[in-house]
Formats: sequence, C-alpha cells, structure tokens
Amino acid sequence: MRTVNVDLGDRSYPIYIGSGLLQHIGEYFKNHGISTKSPLMIVTDDHIAPTYLSSLESTLSAAGYESVSKIVKAGEPSKSLTVFEDVMTTAIEGGLDRNSTVIALGGGVVGDLAGFVAASYMRGIKFVQVPTTILAHDSSVGGKVAVNHPLAKNMIGAFHQPELVLYDLDTLQTLPPREVSAGLAEMVKHGLIRDGDFARWCREHSSELVALDPDALGYGLERGCSIKADVVSQDERENGLRAILNLGHTIGHAIEAVAGYGEYLHGEAIAIGMAGSALLAGRLGRDSSIYDETVSMLQSLKLPVTMAAHLSTDDIIKAMMHDKKFREGHMLFIIPESIGSVSIVKDVPVQLVRETIDQLREGGEVLV
Amino acid sequence: MRTVNVDLGDRSYPIYIGSGLLQHIGEYFKNHGISTKSPLMIVTDDHIAPTYLSSLESTLSAAGYESVSKIVKAGEPSKSLTVFEDVMTTAIEGGLDRNSTVIALGGGVVGDLAGFVAASYMRGIKFVQVPTTILAHDSSVGGKVAVNHPLAKNMIGAFHQPELVLYDLDTLQTLPPREVSAGLAEMVKHGLIRDGDFARWCREHSSELVALDPDALGYGLERGCSIKADVVSQDERENGLRAILNLGHTIGHAIEAVAGYGEYLHGEAIAIGMAGSALLAGRLGRDSSIYDETVSMLQSLKLPVTMAAHLSTDDIIKAMMHDKKFREGHMLFIIPESIGSVSIVKDVPVQLVRETIDQLREGGEVLV
Repeated sequence: MRTVNVDLGDRSYPIYIGSGLLQHIGEYFKNHGISTKSPLMIVTDDHIAPTYLSSLESTLSAAGYESVSKIVKAGEPSKSLTVFEDVMTTAIEGGLDRNSTVIALGGGVVGDLAGFVAASYMRGIKFVQVPTTILAHDSSVGGKVAVNHPLAKNMIGAFHQPELVLYDLDTLQTLPPREVSAGLAEMVKHGLIRDGDFARWCREHSSELVALDPDALGYGLERGCSIKADVVSQDERENGLRAILNLGHTIGHAIEAVAGYGEYLHGEAIAIGMAGSALLAGRLGRDSSIYDETVSMLQSLKLPVTMAAHLSTDDIIKAMMHDKKFREGHMLFIIPESIGSVSIVKDVPVQLVRETIDQLREGGEVLV
Repeated sequence: MRTVNVDLGDRSYPIYIGSGLLQHIGEYFKNHGISTKSPLMIVTDDHIAPTYLSSLESTLSAAGYESVSKIVKAGEPSKSLTVFEDVMTTAIEGGLDRNSTVIALGGGVVGDLAGFVAASYMRGIKFVQVPTTILAHDSSVGGKVAVNHPLAKNMIGAFHQPELVLYDLDTLQTLPPREVSAGLAEMVKHGLIRDGDFARWCREHSSELVALDPDALGYGLERGCSIKADVVSQDERENGLRAILNLGHTIGHAIEAVAGYGEYLHGEAIAIGMAGSALLAGRLGRDSSIYDETVSMLQSLKLPVTMAAHLSTDDIIKAMMHDKKFREGHMLFIIPESIGSVSIVKDVPVQLVRETIDQLREGGEVLV
C-alpha cells in the first residue's frame, strides 16, 4: 500500500492507495476516530452502486457502523442545487448529526457533491473520499468541493478537507477506456506543471497506464496526488500558487460549457485546454517544442488535442468571461514555460486567446 | 460611536455601532481593504429596499464602488435554496469575482442568506453586515450563516466571518414595535446566559429600549454584541461553550417550525423557549425564582412567555428530534443555573420536556 500525506496543519489527512482497501474500511475509520455512535451517509451514483454499494454497506455494518445511502444519477447534471437538496433530505431523514460522516463513493461528481453536502450540512461535518475513477485522484486532493450554477461550473462550493481518502485500485478495473484516458489527463497535468520527468514517465508508460496495470497506476496516482498535495499545502485557499493546477482548465471549462456538460468528459476538455495553453505559450514567445511534446504526451494517453468543428470561438470566449479564473476583469492564464514548469500570466490579450481557440478547432491550422 | 471587536485570530473583525454610519460606508470599506476594482453585491429585502437601498447605492457609487443589488422578499421563506440560487445568479451576472464583497443590508434573514452566498460563491468571498434590526445584533456576531431545508431550519450553512459590521442606529428607528421586542429577546438572552447585571439593566431600561432611545439602545447592543463575541471567540465552531447561546432555541425553533415560519417572530419564539428553559430548570431542581425573574424580564420587553393553545406537544417534540442540538441521539438543553449563568445539560428526560411544553401552552398551569 502507498500513502500520500496532504500536509495542511490541523486539517492534514492521508490518501491510502492500494488493492483491497475497501474490505478494511472499518479499521481505517476506527483509526481515524470516526465514531460508530452517529450514522454515516454514503453518496454514490447509479453506475457505481450496483457493483460496490451493498458490499460497502455490509462491510461498514459488520464493523458496527449504521449508514444510509443516497444514489444519484451518474454525470455532471447531478452537481445541481436540486440534487444537493435531495441529498440533504436523505441526511436529515437518516438522522445524521454533527458527529456524522459523509462518504463519497464514486468519481469527481460524487466527490464534489457529497463534499459540499458535508461542508454545509449543519455547517460542516466529516467527509471521507472513496474515489472510483482515475480522474478523482485530482478532485480528492485539496478539499475543493462544489455544485454547478446553471450559468457556470463549480460556482457554489467550499474548501472542505476530508478525514482520509481510500483509493482502492480494484474499483478502477471496470472503468471504460474513455474514462481511463480522461483520468490520465489530470495525472499528466501534474507532471506538466511541476515535474517534467513524471510527465515523460507517463508517456513512456502510457500503454501500461491505459491498460490499468496496477503497478504503473499505483505509482502514477501516488505521484499525481503528491504533486497536487504539495501545491495545495502551500496555498490551501487558492490565493496564489494553487492556480497553476488550473493548467488547461480555463479553455477546458469553456469547451465543456459550450458543448453542453457531458459531451466531453472533463479530462478530455482539459486535454484540449492544455494543448491550447501550449499554443498560447508559443504565441507569448515560449518554445514551440512545448506544444509538440505536450500533444505527443496527450495523444499517447489517447486524449483529444482539438475540439469539435461546430463549437464557436465567440461562445467559448463568452463562457470564459464567466470563468472564475478572471480576477478583477483581467484574463489570466496558466502558461507552460517548459515541460514541468508553468507560470501565471495575467493580462493575456483576448485577441491571442481568440486566435488560439480558432487553432484548436478540428482541421484548424496549427502554427506556432 | 461604539466599537466591539470580535476576536477570532486572523478572522477578527470590528462591529461599529452608532448613528449616521451608513453615510460614511465608503471610508469604512477603504479602511478595511475592500477594493473598488471588483463589483460589490448588496442583498436586501423588499421592506428595507424602499427606504435605504438607493441611498446606499449612491453612497457607494460616490466612493468609487460599482455594485449590483438583489432584493428578496422579506421573511423566513427567503432562506430557501431557490432564493439562494437566485442571489447567486445576480452575483454571476453582476460579474462578481473572487475579490468581490457581499453586503447584507437587513435583518437576520438577509444576513443568513447573503452570508451563505458569500461563504459559497466561488468557494468564499468577503462579506459585510449592515444590520437593520435589533435581532441582527445576534446573528451578525459569530459568522453562522445558513439557509433552511424544508425539513429543518438553518440545516444548510457555513461559518463565515464578515470583514466588518456597520450597525447604524438610524435604521432601527422605523422598526415596528413587535420586531423591536423580538430583537430585545436576544439582547436579554445574552444577559441571562453570562451577565445577570446586564439582564437586570434590560428590565430596568425596558421602556427606553422599547421606545428605541438611542443611548439605551447603543449601550444594549454594545453589551449584547460583546457578550456574544466573548463566547464566540472562545468557541468559533460550536464544539462546546458556544452552545450556551442556544438558550431557549431548542424549544423556540420547534415552536417556529410547528406554527409555520412567520407565525411567530424568531425572538418571540425564543422568548417562549427561554421561559420553557426556566421551567425545565425548576423541574431539574434549580431555584424557582429563575422562572419568575425570567418571565418578568421578558414581559417588561413586551415579549410572550406562553405559546398558542392550538400547538400540539407531540408535534413540537417531533420537530425537536430534527433539531441539531441533539448530539448522537441524546436530548441536550441549555439550563439556567441563576440569572446570568447557564449550563449545558445532556440527557434531559423526554418526559420532562413534554410536561414543560404542556405548561408553556396558553392557559396551561405553571407550577414550578
């Protein structure tokens, strides 16, 4: 088993990564002071529930924990205030009290939704992440939880750190290939922003990663979580450094919003966004090899690097104006300086962004 | 002008109490580092807006601040997730960014709603309270913000401290008498829990307080805020001591819920709840003079001490079961030990609570 410690003072917590961890969840809970006196709530989705929910419920029950479960529909639309209120109803009817714990069993959507429920139920109760996707290695580190507003993604949320994260590699084995690649997008992103060697390792081991080889996957998740934990521990509430984690996200979020949530998987949109950031880097005078190498890494992980032809540049620019990466009305981008290093560039001219979006379109000419 | 400092480490903030403060809001904002570069949002209600909103907007504009305003309906039903989402829409459309500030212009409902918007918009932005009721002297100290769930009050919220509180006594002069008394209920509560002399001062100056005499009111608000600030600074997240602030609230919240929000003003329900707590104290062996003195204080401020005959004891007990003051299934009450001192009593027998509720009913026999 591998352990990554997220160092946040009295809000520090461990991420356990390994096979078969879920069978021992009761021991982990007891070691982390989660009481059997207050009911737990498991939040999961209808893709995950058939395979894992009843066994999780039995394991918890055998360990002396009482729990209620809430199954939401899989997918981004569940990150709405309506579903949020439904989950709150289950919590209240289940008798959750201030010492209760919410367990997120699922991917990023379930983690974000259940995490914001935990952050705001009775003004904040405990939270445990049990990620079942590769993508969730990103969202389960750092305590950012949120639901969407119809006008913008992740607009309503909190910083709420979990007590622990249990990453059972066995739950990843049934992921569809598209979701595997989408998850690996955030993994290689962590290399691109802080560790060029790790980004190159991802490309070299891309076939093992895509094939879900447990050794490669375990190492990749450990390294991805460690890089993110290192950034988050230096800037928990995203006042500065933490923004570098948004590499590819400004364009990526806008593409998701314009295409309609669900058209692109989050990781796919972010991959296109990272290709876009590398293009922007070239336009801002950085080495054009950054774009070439970024694209080869993304493609080795079977990720898209261009967006569908029907998406309009105007719509994408407009969607960006709602994005929270714009401080005080200026356009801010995370720009690669080399593979493994980025900088935060304020005041990127809109015209450059517009030209980059045009280039990102399928069939667009890529000139750096 | 009077100033109360709420001491919470790096989340400390001042409460300014005096006449004519709103005319100088721009100076206060600049002194507290609120930037003119990011738009502000004023949240208020349709009772307050006609009198104060346009002058606040002009004052802010003259000081160089751009702002958008959201007017919600006055009253508890505005503390819903639906209205919460509406306010978020105004914030997004108004272009609020991570450096923006939300101003709550109004009473407790507006403060709780706008505060939870500030706590969760982009995972937390700045917040300023401009209370326009006496009751809000309570809710504006301590950072507890929340909206209601259909099944239970204040169930969805956060701890989010304001940057500052501007208490302009001029805005209190138009309060209807019933709201004045309801506000004074929380003021005398602060005396009842921590300062018997102040509770007696409230009774002695009850006619000046009810008549909104600025000197008496200024002193009463300062002392009330100070007591609350003292408790909150010792226990920001309500892990222990802070629970004493809930004197009268367990019964009071249940009465509000059963009668239907809006039937009783919050302060009225809490006054009945405090009479109930004093009755419970007698049943638990405390001096019966506590009840007599509590009732005389509440009545001097023109507050009710019994509840309407049609409210059923069963319904009230059931509503309490949803109240968050029950840790791990036990019934917990704040019980007066004397005028000016309370204790937290766990495991109060339900039967005693039931008998107390029966006694609180109008025409019920009060035997202590």
